[in-house]
Amino acid sequence: MNLNTDKKILIVGLGLIGGSYAQALSSKGYTVCAIDISQDSLDYALQKNWITQGSTQPEQGFISQFDIVIFGLYPHDLIDWVESYSKYLKRGALLTDVTGVKGSVVYRVQEILGDDVEFIGAHPMAGSEFSGVKNSRMEIFQNANYIVTPTEKNTQYAIDICKELGQILGFKTITVLSPEQHDEMIAFLSQLTHCIAITLMTCRDTECMTDYSGDSFRDLTRIAKINDEMWSELFLLNKDDLLKQMKLFEQAFSKLYSYIENDNREEIRKIMRYSTSQRELFDKTREK
Amino acid sequence: MNLNTDKKILIVGLGLIGGSYAQALSSKGYTVCAIDISQDSLDYALQKNWITQGSTQPEQGFISQFDIVIFGLYPHDLIDWVESYSKYLKRGALLTDVTGVKGSVVYRVQEILGDDVEFIGAHPMAGSEFSGVKNSRMEIFQNANYIVTPTEKNTQYAIDICKELGQILGFKTITVLSPEQHDEMIAFLSQLTHCIAITLMTCRDTECMTDYSGDSFRDLTRIAKINDEMWSELFLLNKDDLLKQMKLFEQAFSKLYSYIENDNREEIRKIMRYSTSQRELFDKTREK
Repeated sequence: MNLNTDKKILIVGLGLIGGSYAQALSSKGYTVCAIDISQDSLDYALQKNWITQGSTQPEQGFISQFDIVIFGLYPHDLIDWVESYSKYLKRGALLTDVTGVKGSVVYRVQEILGDDVEFIGAHPMAGSEFSGVKNSRMEIFQNANYIVTPTEKNTQYAIDICKELGQILGFKTITVLSPEQHDEMIAFLSQLTHCIAITLMTCRDTECMTDYSGDSFRDLTRIAKINDEMWSELFLLNKDDLLKQMKLFEQAFSKLYSYIENDNREEIRKIMRYSTSQRELFDKTREK
Repeated sequence: MNLNTDKKILIVGLGLIGGSYAQALSSKGYTVCAIDISQDSLDYALQKNWITQGSTQPEQGFISQFDIVIFGLYPHDLIDWVESYSKYLKRGALLTDVTGVKGSVVYRVQEILGDDVEFIGAHPMAGSEFSGVKNSRMEIFQNANYIVTPTEKNTQYAIDICKELGQILGFKTITVLSPEQHDEMIAFLSQLTHCIAITLMTCRDTECMTDYSGDSFRDLTRIAKINDEMWSELFLLNKDDLLKQMKLFEQAFSKLYSYIENDNREEIRKIMRYSTSQRELFDKTREK
């Protein structure tokens, strides 16, 4: 156990995820402080006792006291912050993040930082269709996956601390992937699914249909309620991987289209049987 | 109230939906009997007291006693059954069904039948990824939609009885649509969503990803576990409508692809904002 409760933790960016981190970590006895541009968000977390101190200003006197710094910022804000303020960080501090894309963030941040502090990427695969600290709930980490994405620059110490952080936060599964493996996987499992949901929700007039929708349509469009600022940034930062996965989907969809067009019932049934057996693997994983 | 408990009800085809109908109707005091090719299914329903009598044979002496006949069969089996056995039906009997496509079934059945009996189409929009009478549960009708699809041949009496049946079964919303309106709507809300789910589940190797999937992927692929016999038939019977909706989806998906390819963040955000506002309409309907 390296991440003992002596370590002082700073959360930079107190949104849905940052707030949920603050709640989980403070409930486990850690001293958690936060920086956010909104005094309102800080006040909310202070009042909930999720943080002991908050600041809207990234001042050296404040920042330099923390052993662990967790960035709950959008990718470009994270890079900007590190460029401007990393000089204020405590020597030996460990930095990590919650960003949903890795390749375009992790290497850049590590490049900016000197040898005094270490940054290791992590992706808590949890969220909500509602944003902001007032929707934070540490329960979103239960049954969720936490992925640590080290590069060759990272120490084993940092990897261990980061995995431990995932455990303390309450994640069910903690794994390690390279930034590249992470980005390909996330392009398929998460970004492509959001592309599909928003396309389904917008490809035709549906207002006349609200009375008729069943669980299928509701399930497929739940994530069509989307934070456009965050997700458009994530899509474009992972553009090559996402386009590749979109293309795979599009080709398979066109094939199914042509089977239906040609009344090729045997091929349609073959896809459906394969789909059924593949989906069962995911049910089994959940039961584990 | 026309559909009083004096009416004797026959269910032909005791699968998931037929069984759930039997359970719901018997619990409301109706005399329910069933025909099914499987003695096992009949025995299950008899033992549960969902039916008072079951037969594997469509014999005249048995069939001729029922006022209401509900077909829980696949479309082509329904048409075959009506062609072979409708001559045994009681004069004045009212027939209805549970089929997921209407245009290709309703007109054909009405054409086969003489003036002695009346058929009116209905679609209970409820289901489960599990099939068969042993998975029947009348609770699947709660919060679900029931759509009556009359043609010009139907009487107001039949429409009223059929709507009443939906109420007795426990459906939340009962509406009336033409077979054509129904089929267009179902092509989009249900068939297209199943096409998307099975494509997503089969377009690439995913076995390496089972540990990383979040709620998004699970939600979008829940219906990828699919009864290939039934759904391939439903797809092909509603081919023109389905292909039209698939094309709409495909075009919108390609447009999103090109916005991402060209880093057109403003257009991506515009789609996301529209998607968010459209999805909220469906949340509102649920709350009603």
